[in-house]
Amino acid sequence: MQDADREARHQARMARKKAIIDAHIAAADEERGLLLINTGNGKGKSSAAFGVLARALGHGMNCAVIQFIKSRSDTGEEAFFRDHPRVKWHVMGDGFTWDTQNDAQDRATARTAWEQAVGYLRDPAIDLLILDEFTYTLKYGWLPLEKVSRELMSRPEMQHVIITGRAAPEGLIEIADTVTTMDLTRHAYHAGVKAMPGIEW
Amino acid sequence: MQDADREARHQARMARKKAIIDAHIAAADEERGLLLINTGNGKGKSSAAFGVLARALGHGMNCAVIQFIKSRSDTGEEAFFRDHPRVKWHVMGDGFTWDTQNDAQDRATARTAWEQAVGYLRDPAIDLLILDEFTYTLKYGWLPLEKVSRELMSRPEMQHVIITGRAAPEGLIEIADTVTTMDLTRHAYHAGVKAMPGIEW
Repeated sequence: MQDADREARHQARMARKKAIIDAHIAAADEERGLLLINTGNGKGKSSAAFGVLARALGHGMNCAVIQFIKSRSDTGEEAFFRDHPRVKWHVMGDGFTWDTQNDAQDRATARTAWEQAVGYLRDPAIDLLILDEFTYTLKYGWLPLEKVSRELMSRPEMQHVIITGRAAPEGLIEIADTVTTMDLTRHAYHAGVKAMPGIEW
Repeated sequence: MQDADREARHQARMARKKAIIDAHIAAADEERGLLLINTGNGKGKSSAAFGVLARALGHGMNCAVIQFIKSRSDTGEEAFFRDHPRVKWHVMGDGFTWDTQNDAQDRATARTAWEQAVGYLRDPAIDLLILDEFTYTLKYGWLPLEKVSRELMSRPEMQHVIITGRAAPEGLIEIADTVTTMDLTRHAYHAGVKAMPGIEW
């Protein structure tokens, strides 16, 4: 009998919870393209974007990815997605600032990649655009935030955009719909583990 | 001339930075399977796991996914991954506690899904195992943490495991290699936007 009582109380509590949650879901009825930002120092900013890419492809969407810093083309994500008929994949970086050691080159590279992005931001056939490691172009002043914001805000109404990278500037966060800060609670790298293929790249 | 000076200083600074970073990379030389946890209240816990899944598949790995809470099979991620020859995909949940409203059923469901997980945790042919929304089985006491930890720690040496879900218990975090806390900075849902296909599911 005690168990039956316990189950009945559980059932009543969950029914009340469900009513609240259902009301919240019903209230969220707007449909539009979203601007998502994945920032912070933890692992998962780019991989969360690539997970959403898989999700969007599963729904039949057309997608594009521009990698702003990365220059290597041997990553697992590229090998996996690049031949998909509904993905356009662009590796447009030259590596990190400490790899290039050339500020003028970094700026020129960022501008070229941004021109590619603008093409997609004006194309309503693109349902999801991922600007991977894009925040660094703003952080280092390679691209002007005001111009970038204007272009993002005037994109097609149903187009989703995901921007990843550390230290997203406040001006970008202000215009975003969903912002996740990936906090580094712990990272295997700091315990002496190599960047493992399949996990880190 | 000023520009050339500036470039030279930039180059010298970046060369020093690169030396430090290269030394750190050289010091991280251990190779082994990792236990990753994606927790917190923000968006990106499951999608980061699915992004790593794409990455691992791109490197030719064999992978398995068990969804512990989700009962729906119409998600974009499942549509995208389920037919891949190197992915085993299991939707083993009954929905959230407020959907089932039945504690005994929730416990039985969690136990069945865990048995499936144990099969993979003892199989060295599985390179990456994702236990999606698994933390809830511990949070609600459906599975004993000690038994779960023991099984995770005795898995094959090179097997990677990713656990997702809010409120990962301290005992699980202690045995993990990489832990990211996805903090909710902002979510479109709270601004009245519906859960958009391709982004949220």
